Formats: sequence, C-alpha cells, structure tokens
Amino acid sequence: MQGSDFGGRLGAVATRARAAGVDAVLVTPGPDLQYLVGYEAVPLERLTCLVIPADDVPFLVVPRLELLAAQASPVSALGLALHPWTEGEDPYALVARHLRAAATVAVDDHMWASKVLSLRDAMPGVHQVLAGPTIADLRMRKDPTEVDALLRAGAAIDRVHAQVPGLLDAGRTEREVGADIAAAILDAGHVRVDFVIVASGPNGASPHHEVSDRIIENGDVIVVDIGGTMPDGYRSDCTRTYVVGEPPAGFAEAFAVLVEAQAAAVAHAAPGVSCESVDASARDILTSGGLGEHFIHRTGHGIGLETHEEPYIVAGNRLTLEPGMAFSIEPGFYVEGRYGARIEDIVITSADGLMVANNQPRELVVAS
Amino acid sequence: MQGSDFGGRLGAVATRARAAGVDAVLVTPGPDLQYLVGYEAVPLERLTCLVIPADDVPFLVVPRLELLAAQASPVSALGLALHPWTEGEDPYALVARHLRAAATVAVDDHMWASKVLSLRDAMPGVHQVLAGPTIADLRMRKDPTEVDALLRAGAAIDRVHAQVPGLLDAGRTEREVGADIAAAILDAGHVRVDFVIVASGPNGASPHHEVSDRIIENGDVIVVDIGGTMPDGYRSDCTRTYVVGEPPAGFAEAFAVLVEAQAAAVAHAAPGVSCESVDASARDILTSGGLGEHFIHRTGHGIGLETHEEPYIVAGNRLTLEPGMAFSIEPGFYVEGRYGARIEDIVITSADGLMVANNQPRELVVAS
Repeated sequence: MQGSDFGGRLGAVATRARAAGVDAVLVTPGPDLQYLVGYEAVPLERLTCLVIPADDVPFLVVPRLELLAAQASPVSALGLALHPWTEGEDPYALVARHLRAAATVAVDDHMWASKVLSLRDAMPGVHQVLAGPTIADLRMRKDPTEVDALLRAGAAIDRVHAQVPGLLDAGRTEREVGADIAAAILDAGHVRVDFVIVASGPNGASPHHEVSDRIIENGDVIVVDIGGTMPDGYRSDCTRTYVVGEPPAGFAEAFAVLVEAQAAAVAHAAPGVSCESVDASARDILTSGGLGEHFIHRTGHGIGLETHEEPYIVAGNRLTLEPGMAFSIEPGFYVEGRYGARIEDIVITSADGLMVANNQPRELVVAS
Repeated sequence: MQGSDFGGRLGAVATRARAAGVDAVLVTPGPDLQYLVGYEAVPLERLTCLVIPADDVPFLVVPRLELLAAQASPVSALGLALHPWTEGEDPYALVARHLRAAATVAVDDHMWASKVLSLRDAMPGVHQVLAGPTIADLRMRKDPTEVDALLRAGAAIDRVHAQVPGLLDAGRTEREVGADIAAAILDAGHVRVDFVIVASGPNGASPHHEVSDRIIENGDVIVVDIGGTMPDGYRSDCTRTYVVGEPPAGFAEAFAVLVEAQAAAVAHAAPGVSCESVDASARDILTSGGLGEHFIHRTGHGIGLETHEEPYIVAGNRLTLEPGMAFSIEPGFYVEGRYGARIEDIVITSADGLMVANNQPRELVVAS
C-alpha cells in the first residue's frame, strides 16, 4: 500500500530473526509478502520466495515468467535483488545455495506444505520454525496508514449493512439475498467478496453457515456476517442480526443481553488491558444472563490484510493491548434447531481509547 | 459435487497410502478435502483435518463451532466420524492421540506451514511426506461427472469471451475493462472470479500481468486470460488475444505461427502420448518460426477443482495421457516493451480422442 514503510518492516523482521536465533525468514505469496514488500503475487505451484537473512540483504526468488510482474511491484523501488529461475530449474536448490550457513530458518505460517517439505529436503539438517510469531508481532501493530485503511473498510461494509433490511423479504432464499449482498459489497468499494453469511432461523445456530436454499420465513431471526477486501488489501468484517416480523418468544430478552455484553466488551477494550479480559467482559454478562453455554466461540480476532490474524480475543491470551491493534468484538449465542445471534464490530485501539470502525445500529433490526 | 463417489475416493487414498508406506493421510480445508469428502470448509487458523489411516476408518477433526457446517456437508451421508474440539483444547494433540502407531504421515500439498509444523511438534519422530502424489494420482483422472462439469465451465467462460471485443475500446483502462469482465464472469454462471488478465500493449509481455490503469490505445494487442469457479467447484480458464485497430508491424505473421503451434498441440494431445511431447509439439513450431526464445513458459497445466493441478504439460514430464485428463494448451510469445500473445483452450482426453472445452475463435480478433 502507498505510504507503507516496507524497508522498515524488512529491517524489523531481520532484527527479530536475529533475536530469535533464526538465520533467515522465508516468505511465499500471501498476506505476509504483501505486508513486507507490497508484492501481491498469487500463491501458485511455482516457487516465489522472499528470503530475509538475519545478517544480510533480503532478496526475492521468482519464476522467470513472473519477473516483470515482480518488477512492476514496490519490490523495484525497494531495490530488492531478484533471482529469477526458469522452468526446469530447481528453485529450492537455488534458495539453499544462498543459505549454506543457515542452521534454523523460519517459514511463513501460510506457506504450502509442498514448499515447506521441498525446502526441508533441499536443506537437510536445517531446522524449520514458524515465522508467524515474528511477523505477527509487527502486523498486529497497525501504523496510521493501516488504521485509516481499516476505518475505510469499516465504512464500506456499513454501507452494505444499511441495505440489508431491504433485502430480507420472507419468501426469498438465503442464496438470493446473499447474491444481492455480494454485489453490494463490490458496489461499496471492495475489490473482492470474502464471505457472505446469511443464516436464517435454525441455520443461525451454525456460526460458520454461509448461505443455503432455505426460504426466509416470517418470524425468522437472521444473522448476516459479511466482509470483503478493499483495493489496498485491507479487510472488512461486520455482523448484524435481523428479524423478519416478530421474533420467537424469548428471543428479544436474550438479544438484549447480547447487546449489553457486546457493548461491555467494547467499553472494556483499551490499551493496557489483556485480550483475555476483553473476552471475559463479554462472556461474564452472557453467563449471568444464562447464555454462557450458548456462546461457543472466542470474542474476536485481529484483522488487517487477513480477516483472521493476531491478536485473538480469547481466554488464555494474556497479550496486553497497545495502541494500533485492530480486532473484532463479536459475542453471540447459538441455540440448535432454533436460531443464532451475533453482533460484531471491528475496533482499533488508540492512545486515546478506542475507534469503532462499524457504526450501523446494533439493536435487533426488523427487516422492512 | 452431486454424484461424486466420495467413499470410493477415500478407499483409493487408503490403498495408495498403504502401497506408499504411509500410515495416514492428513487433509486440511482446500481442494483435496473438497474432492475427497465434498466439504468446502474455508482454510482458517483453527484446525479442521480429515484423517485417512491406511488401515482404519477415516475421521474428521473439526472445531466445535464448525460442527453443524460439517454435518450439513456430504460428510454426514458418508458416515464419517466427527471429532469436535473446543476453544482452548489442542487439536494437534487430538490428531496425535489417534495416530500413536504412525511412523510416516502424508500432509496435503496446500496445508499451511503453521499446521504442518504443529503436527510435526505434536508427533515428534513421525516422518512427514507430501500427500500430493497420492491424491493427484486420483484427481487428475476425471470421472464423467467431472468431465461434464469442466465442459460446462468452458462454455461459461466462452460466453464471456464472446463479449470481450465489445469491451475493448481505445480510451478505456485495463482496470475498467477488467471490472466489466469480472461482472460478466459472474453473470455467465460462475460463483467466483478467480483471475482477470487484461494485458494491453507492452503489459502483454508479462504473462501474469493482471490489470493496470494503462489506457488502451489504438494499435494495442491485448491478451485476455480469464477464469472463474462454477457452483460445483470446477474451474474455467481461457485466453484469447485481441487487437484494437491495426496490429503492430510483424505481429500478424508471428500470431499466425502461434495459431499453428496451438492447433498442433491440440491435434497431438491424446491418450497414449506423453505430457512432454504435447509441450514439444507446440514449442517446435514456435522455435521453427523464430519465436522459441519468446515462449517462456510451459504449454499447459491440469485443471479441475484448482486452476493449476496435475498433469503439467511441460518438458521433463513423461506421464502418459489417459482418458479423462483435463488440461490447458496455451502456448504464447512475449516481447518485452512491445506485446505478448497467448491462445489457451482447456482440453479433456477421452477414449475417442480429445474434447475441447473452449470454442471461441482462436484467430486474432479485432475489437469492435
């Protein structure tokens, strides 16, 4: 992304690698590569690999036929050396030749097994560890450019949720509504639809239900959880719960507890508090309201160039929030055979407290 | 996909694992999982893992909150045992407990490094190999249902190419044309746009260029390489080369050689011939025509639930084609600073010869 300090990020990775006793960090196409050098290569079977030695200058191994694409990326302005390989050559041997003295290498968390094991075989005796902790340590601390990008993404998905009540007519299928929402996600400025969950009635009890041919009926509670990728690579993710007509008996009371739990976690989240305490602040209220056993997932996940990344807002995560951390706060409750409910906002900690990227009404919205 | 013999596929993997000395095959969300059990889970940080022991019944390890989604997939009809894990539990230890006696496990080619290394650490002393060769051996032999699916995908992308000449006006940017093509890909029946390459003028020299803000000019040669995913998961992929107005001097003659080379490879491809000989049949003609050095990639790749899969049509691949193999035939030539050209069809070998999934004109099409 324009304005990103790629050089600084590469230097920070090398410094952290040295501190961790890692001789080189190896990064294949995906969000880590995009974050570190701005090159949005598609993960394919041919090896593209950014090599960041702890004590030497980084370089990029790239298939010959993707050389021009790599040169057209920010990689050129960074002055990164490019090592192209042609069809028939062994790119893993090429990487190994440059890392003869390495004893430990870190591979990016999303690297395909085919590449992990090919590197293992090309560098026998070299210990492989995950680059995740090293790179996540940087990625979870957003710079001001990234914060702006996430606020823009939040505003874009808010524009979609504003249209959802008009799409949820009884008689339409989840799939039909989902197609309209997907089009609206693109219209709102995203370049890619990442997911569209339209979980009506009993389907709402499955947190990761997407869409089905179920026909929406009067009285259905509908969980709509949607997100996409903006042109700069940053993601949106927002959930609201809707109802067509009158909700089932008892639902409104339970939902009021959820609204309270979500607001409590938002109020609690701030620099200096732990991730697990944010989870607890929502969970305690749901538990007091008799809904604890129905809240079957963590309270949230980080977001940035991926929809799910560090920091995770989950019991056991003692990480202390710092300014510039972006994550979801999305408690819910799920009753098998009946319905589900979830409210999700993306929030970003700042020195002054918390920015909330999503601002559509959180109350149960009656579809028109 | 409806009509898929998941049980037969699981049995075939176990048989091949036994023959290869592998004690269990581990498959995380992705095309292999979709192929083997029809479960289209999204790859996320939480572990979902199909375990296929060589000598026991397969089972699925799944996060508790995705249990209902897994049960809603073909996994239920298969009678596969489900082992859910809750947040805070260690799913890698769960897999390890079920594979106490294993000495060698195979991991799917696309498994994330974070999972490969977590499994390695949970099962110290167990040798990890790639499941790719085992599963690819099945996936590259398409059954009649899959052949039909690929022919439908081919017809869908043909409908998009039929509209492309009307979109390529001088004065428009590649990005604008690309957005129209993306919408047309969805309108044609795909559920996802996988890639849109609109490579005009000098951008055509980069085979993996996508779109840019370059304004299309009169006299531009434009490579349009597009593909998407159909509702059943099968992919389309087709390239045609267009020109706005009159092509540059010498281009038409070179393009005629390319048309001849592509047709020769299509004519040559059939059960009983080797993958590398198909590559050579196109390459020889381009080389004779003085374009050999400008044909900088292999002739093709297999296609199915992934855009790129086995068999690869490349020098060195002695695999003999059999009925039911689906792959691209896509020679091209690339002249830096000037233009590129490529013609790509998906073809499927059958007992009677070859089916061609793409049938729009292959000649240089002048945009209207």
